[in-house]
Amino acid sequence: MSTTTATIEDLEFNSTPLMRGLSEDQIEEVFNRMEHLCYESDSLILTQGEANPGIWLLSSGCAEVVRDGIGGNPERVLALLGPGSVFGEMSFFRKTPHTANVRSVQQSTVHKLSWSALEELKKDAGEIAVVLLANIVTVAAERLHLMDNWVCRLLESNEVPSSQGGGGDGRFEEWHEFRAKLYREWDF
Amino acid sequence: MSTTTATIEDLEFNSTPLMRGLSEDQIEEVFNRMEHLCYESDSLILTQGEANPGIWLLSSGCAEVVRDGIGGNPERVLALLGPGSVFGEMSFFRKTPHTANVRSVQQSTVHKLSWSALEELKKDAGEIAVVLLANIVTVAAERLHLMDNWVCRLLESNEVPSSQGGGGDGRFEEWHEFRAKLYREWDF
Repeated sequence: MSTTTATIEDLEFNSTPLMRGLSEDQIEEVFNRMEHLCYESDSLILTQGEANPGIWLLSSGCAEVVRDGIGGNPERVLALLGPGSVFGEMSFFRKTPHTANVRSVQQSTVHKLSWSALEELKKDAGEIAVVLLANIVTVAAERLHLMDNWVCRLLESNEVPSSQGGGGDGRFEEWHEFRAKLYREWDF
Repeated sequence: MSTTTATIEDLEFNSTPLMRGLSEDQIEEVFNRMEHLCYESDSLILTQGEANPGIWLLSSGCAEVVRDGIGGNPERVLALLGPGSVFGEMSFFRKTPHTANVRSVQQSTVHKLSWSALEELKKDAGEIAVVLLANIVTVAAERLHLMDNWVCRLLESNEVPSSQGGGGDGRFEEWHEFRAKLYREWDF
């Protein structure tokens, strides 16, 4: 990994949903507060279990999100990330170690907004910070909605109850209770 | 429904995670920009399918989140909300109609931060808006994490594959692809 002298002109920063609603000047303001890092192919950008809090944006190359295998099982590729992808933001806000590795598949350029950079942005340019945060909330809300729908379709499908002799109903109740807790409680 | 003259002293606003990290003065600043509404028992606070964008905080009473039944099925209670509960924030950021009803079970007092109130807060008191938004992101991130874990446990459990003769593996692949899409894409 090495730092890189990427300039904002190289990148299509305004095409990433993270920056939606920001002017070009505001995007540059964010860009100037980021660390710009270049990774050779097959390098670890984030390491599962480690805390390296940041909001990461991939601008060129390709990376894979990989979870370590448990109990001798092989690792599992969860997602492939291309230019414009944002990652690490969930651990960033949960203040927890990363729950997966992110590894470059090709030579890749990434841009990291650290915790302290976001704190400074909040102080010096709150109007930019609120747009970034609102964009992240919007994505998280959409993901939650889609995930909820997916699970409901799974549990409501005929397959599960018919093959489990009613076990699917138990699963539905379990999900129902779980989701109720999820939406009721803000303290986890 | 009627507006109410609740004062901030009546409420334990600093105990809600929405306000975490705000000073008492800042909480009062948010409070003063909210609409304060009182609902009799068995009144609709939010109506499924309608757009009434706001971040809602219940300070006294009790309400239930209820989804309309489909195809003659009875309605389904998704969650019970008590004092300190926040609701409506997901539709607020997704800019979509509400996906469920919220109905008072007892006489309840709720406080609504409207879209325009949040916009004004962003302009006049950006340092407060960023804290509110960061609190909402944190909750959404935690919910996503818990939901993801729940689904993984469901799909990895022995029950599903053994009773479906390998069907569980298909489900796992389906979930795998769905989640990959969910985490890769910020444009839905």
